[in-house]
Amino acid sequence: MSNPSGFQGLVCPMPITRRDQVVMAHGSGGRMTHELIKGLFLPPWDNPVLRAGDDAGVVPTGSAARLAVSTDSHVVWPLFFPGGDIGRLAVCGTVNDVAMMGAVPKYLTAGFILEEGLAFEVLERVVESMRLAAEEAGVQIIAGDTKVVQRGKADGLYINTAGVGLLADGAAIGGAGARSGDVIILSGPIGDHGIAVLSARGELGFEAEVQSDIAPLNHLVEAMLRASDQVHVLRDPTRGGLATTLNEIAAQSQVGVVLEEDRIPVRPAVAAACEILGFDPLYVANEGKLVAVVGADHAERVLEAMRRTRYGEEAVPIGVIQEEPKACVLMKTSIGSHRIVDVLSGEMLPRIC
Amino acid sequence: MSNPSGFQGLVCPMPITRRDQVVMAHGSGGRMTHELIKGLFLPPWDNPVLRAGDDAGVVPTGSAARLAVSTDSHVVWPLFFPGGDIGRLAVCGTVNDVAMMGAVPKYLTAGFILEEGLAFEVLERVVESMRLAAEEAGVQIIAGDTKVVQRGKADGLYINTAGVGLLADGAAIGGAGARSGDVIILSGPIGDHGIAVLSARGELGFEAEVQSDIAPLNHLVEAMLRASDQVHVLRDPTRGGLATTLNEIAAQSQVGVVLEEDRIPVRPAVAAACEILGFDPLYVANEGKLVAVVGADHAERVLEAMRRTRYGEEAVPIGVIQEEPKACVLMKTSIGSHRIVDVLSGEMLPRIC
Repeated sequence: MSNPSGFQGLVCPMPITRRDQVVMAHGSGGRMTHELIKGLFLPPWDNPVLRAGDDAGVVPTGSAARLAVSTDSHVVWPLFFPGGDIGRLAVCGTVNDVAMMGAVPKYLTAGFILEEGLAFEVLERVVESMRLAAEEAGVQIIAGDTKVVQRGKADGLYINTAGVGLLADGAAIGGAGARSGDVIILSGPIGDHGIAVLSARGELGFEAEVQSDIAPLNHLVEAMLRASDQVHVLRDPTRGGLATTLNEIAAQSQVGVVLEEDRIPVRPAVAAACEILGFDPLYVANEGKLVAVVGADHAERVLEAMRRTRYGEEAVPIGVIQEEPKACVLMKTSIGSHRIVDVLSGEMLPRIC
Repeated sequence: MSNPSGFQGLVCPMPITRRDQVVMAHGSGGRMTHELIKGLFLPPWDNPVLRAGDDAGVVPTGSAARLAVSTDSHVVWPLFFPGGDIGRLAVCGTVNDVAMMGAVPKYLTAGFILEEGLAFEVLERVVESMRLAAEEAGVQIIAGDTKVVQRGKADGLYINTAGVGLLADGAAIGGAGARSGDVIILSGPIGDHGIAVLSARGELGFEAEVQSDIAPLNHLVEAMLRASDQVHVLRDPTRGGLATTLNEIAAQSQVGVVLEEDRIPVRPAVAAACEILGFDPLYVANEGKLVAVVGADHAERVLEAMRRTRYGEEAVPIGVIQEEPKACVLMKTSIGSHRIVDVLSGEMLPRIC
């Protein structure tokens, strides 16, 4: 929607042609692209930057010394599932990536690849869902783009979002910040998103009654950072699950991660579904959870701050950071033994996000 | 590649499995995703921000008061064509959108949607092409993401890029800035990109020997802005062509655009191809051209500055801005009559970018 294909330069006296599905000409950059943007995207997303209709959205940096910039493409299938849809996912996924650097997410871009024949009603639902998620997160969608591909070439639509967050000087949160003695905190039960999507695909063979946890976590992060300056690592365990995320942190920080199996929360319905499917919830995707590595002295105050927020109510400590074994995740099991928790191998749940 | 699917947290002792094509597990967020990123994307694109492997790239704002942020998804088919490929397009398209605001493009994100079965050799060529284009433009790719969809669900790959540019206080370039009396400058001949892609599809029925004009235009823009503070509008006429872009400017600025047909450069091979296909080159996509609206007193010095740069050598004035008719583009033909030049209706060349 940026560049003459884009959200800009909406050509003036333009009757909106009533159509009920996407056709190739919606990707032409000409009249029908303008109509699509003017008729479908702008009304819900309206803001001065988008309305200006230029090749790029121009926004102030404020007093920020640094930017955190992230991107995610979203190809989840099906487009709608219990607790969410591709639109909410596209906004929250990128908001969360930016927030995990300790930055305040402010601006999003949205790039759509639409399949010829996609019903406008579906696109409208997705766009509205993005509006609601952006509103909840407090971010503005300031640039966009639409392309159209032939029937069969995308499953309805794919959405890419990129996010820009503002970061004050000083804050230093990243995967390399974990230190021996730190406490690992998880913001709530794992595996909800993956099982909810699987359930929507009808691949469970039974009704799981699990809702995806998709949520914007930036307000949770803000509460944590207000409570403590000893938050060393923040990360959201999405694809690859908690196990993969913790391995990433162990590798980046060159430390050992020691988890206590009994402390890792899994909802009974998720546990039951995983049991039947032969999945380990440690590898199932989440879209509204974060894992934090916090200085031991500050763990309690961070937990308290988390529990006072909507998406951190169920926060728990799940383990500690040790010097050794470096770049490795160990699980202390309920019977007291240790096992190595590796990263996800192969593919468990394709197109989960 | 940002978020546990992403470029971050590259897990440590990791033998790169030799494979020669994309499989679904490359989108898992687990070991194979890490291998793909570590083996294929990082070596050519290596920079400290990407190497940090966090959820978002963190970069300084410098003394910039504002940001210009843009995005484009790229679905061009075929992936390679005379003069360029989807990778060069993805970098230049977004660099140019940011530059058209008068901003200095600095950072890009790259989101890949890969089709199962895509040959690594193809992906490597695209990634290398992106490296070269980013180097030429002087921008860094600081965040990425890869997703994999099933065979048939994408044509090899789609690429989304988002770009962030830094913008000093004061600069005010945008589609609404054209004023009566301003001169319209075009940076070179139109239609090359569209005809080159069409030729690569074999849809011409003959050999056109036209190269795409894909190029990063940010250095050209810098030269123009150094030469004059009277550059009011900059825009790159991509999808929809020059006609659509000028209509956008006419609408945003509420002015009339008057073009002189004889002054609009079209290469003979492009003109010949358009003649045969029944296309008007005014509507054919460009990827390395810009149109500028400049205060009349400064037109000559801007033209001179343009002609001293690689991508502005063939710059020419093509028309003027008038008060009336508002939101309208008129063409003065070679025989002295006027005709209205409308925006592109329908779809002429699907999947051109």
